[in-house]
Amino acid sequence: MRYVIGIDIGGTNLVVGAVREDGSGLGTVLSQPTRSEEGPDSVLARLTIIANTVIEETLSKQPEAEVIGVGIGAPGPLDTSSGVVFLTPNLAWVDLPLRQRMADALGYPATLDNDANCAILGEWWQGAARGAQHALGVTIGTGIGGGVITNGALYHGASDCAGELGHTSLDLQGRKCKCGNYGCLEAYASGPAIALRAVEAIEVGEPSVMLEHAGGDTARITAEIVYQAAQAGDNVALEVVRDTARYLGTGIANFVNIFNPEVVVVCGGVTRAGERLFAPLRQEVARRAFKPAVAACRIVAGELPGTAGVYGAAASFLQLRDAGKIGIPAQGMPRA
Amino acid sequence: MRYVIGIDIGGTNLVVGAVREDGSGLGTVLSQPTRSEEGPDSVLARLTIIANTVIEETLSKQPEAEVIGVGIGAPGPLDTSSGVVFLTPNLAWVDLPLRQRMADALGYPATLDNDANCAILGEWWQGAARGAQHALGVTIGTGIGGGVITNGALYHGASDCAGELGHTSLDLQGRKCKCGNYGCLEAYASGPAIALRAVEAIEVGEPSVMLEHAGGDTARITAEIVYQAAQAGDNVALEVVRDTARYLGTGIANFVNIFNPEVVVVCGGVTRAGERLFAPLRQEVARRAFKPAVAACRIVAGELPGTAGVYGAAASFLQLRDAGKIGIPAQGMPRA
Repeated sequence: MRYVIGIDIGGTNLVVGAVREDGSGLGTVLSQPTRSEEGPDSVLARLTIIANTVIEETLSKQPEAEVIGVGIGAPGPLDTSSGVVFLTPNLAWVDLPLRQRMADALGYPATLDNDANCAILGEWWQGAARGAQHALGVTIGTGIGGGVITNGALYHGASDCAGELGHTSLDLQGRKCKCGNYGCLEAYASGPAIALRAVEAIEVGEPSVMLEHAGGDTARITAEIVYQAAQAGDNVALEVVRDTARYLGTGIANFVNIFNPEVVVVCGGVTRAGERLFAPLRQEVARRAFKPAVAACRIVAGELPGTAGVYGAAASFLQLRDAGKIGIPAQGMPRA
Repeated sequence: MRYVIGIDIGGTNLVVGAVREDGSGLGTVLSQPTRSEEGPDSVLARLTIIANTVIEETLSKQPEAEVIGVGIGAPGPLDTSSGVVFLTPNLAWVDLPLRQRMADALGYPATLDNDANCAILGEWWQGAARGAQHALGVTIGTGIGGGVITNGALYHGASDCAGELGHTSLDLQGRKCKCGNYGCLEAYASGPAIALRAVEAIEVGEPSVMLEHAGGDTARITAEIVYQAAQAGDNVALEVVRDTARYLGTGIANFVNIFNPEVVVVCGGVTRAGERLFAPLRQEVARRAFKPAVAACRIVAGELPGTAGVYGAAASFLQLRDAGKIGIPAQGMPRA
């Protein structure tokens, strides 16, 4: 059995897994907090240790196993051809030759792609978008990442910047977004934006169990606390989830009119809100988008929570390698 | 020389032209008002007369000329596989087997595609987007049509509905759009929407030469009058053009973040406003979209005013024919 090591570098967690080349399953998967404040050298040193542990466990468990390469998913913008990350606001990395650093550190050929691209590619390969020709991914976490599959392949655009679905304005005079634009989907429906809307409601005096769950300190209210309170029937939390559905629904309606996809996969913790989120979200899309496009499109939660990015990084390795966008370790040959 | 007859069916005009198969030029081009209020039978009867005139002139001028087929661009939604137009709000056509009707009437194989798709395909084949792998078209007229070229081919989506760039909301609680959504780009920046914003400014008492140009009747103010008044330095008209740039710039910034295209081609009468429109439009895009995506993207006026749709309908014929999406005349064989 041949394996690709999938590395998913997020603002919160590093996840590394051994993915079977045919996508039929995962071997060892390890995760640890990113701790980006320690700087890129420290993060990459820890990432190397985790990846080597995954590789050693994979090879020791199955003597006939082989590792053929490493696919890396990282926040962008980045360049899949040179393997350089230009800028990651959440990690504070600038012009980092991430692909070469990891290829050299691990001794395997490596590829680099955008983390949100990897999430939808993983869902397309082995998850909720399996079999679709045209699929979109919307990954909600610290920010909102997007990924686009057209005609059965990841769409990268002219300079690997395509798919920034979270940075489309739904309100041209709306909330300032971290990206500099106004009214971006991310500014309303990312994890921190969801928490912020809950805090705003509580601060104008609406009673909510969320305040207790946060130990009386609104600064400690998170999106996770919102979902839990909504599950428990808290009215303020339910209102925040309904508003989240309205913002996401408006954005996804735009994407449905633009792409006419077969499926939109929503990934991230927000999906734990379940039908309380998805039912009004689908209604909002149906209210706003063209009926034939709505009829053609499923809107579903990701099926690979926690590992979509690892699957996708491995799938991206296979596709980018075939496109010649690969970095070889400095010693020239992959290790045996 | 082999020709494809390109037919561009618009809400205002019918345009038919003979396009050289290699795209190197146009033969006869004829145009007449659509007069959709007469109903589809009348429109198609007149369209048949125009197309036959174009075909006869083409064949009579060059005895060695040959017509190989007919490409039709029409407002949608429609189905390129069956050649049926489902619904055209501006023409009031419902479930019309347009491709077969025209193939039978003209005696040539025919194809059907969306009119805005044809506009960008024409600009990509022989106009402002020549040579691009990834290009977007935004066609501003009675409505705002969109078209998407990815990886060097027209992108149709799951059910031929893709590319509705005009129906993306820029203001989730904004102006009601004819499509049922709120705050669509079309509701702010189509020809009628541009005229409406001028009327609104005049009706609150702002002095403008536009009122004179419209014979004192605000109901007769058109987008064309706005562009002319802006050229003449009228302050209200200039403000309307600046606002148009802001709306278009917000929408195009969204598309740039989503598609990372090499070029966005703006087509339609609005381009006659020239740099008074394009300079602030490009500034708005640069202010809102990601810098690497902005750096990769030109934003330009179409180079084929009046004939982009004809060129594109012919190009679409060649592509859809090769994809097997073609209608053959009832008598079975194309006429000699």
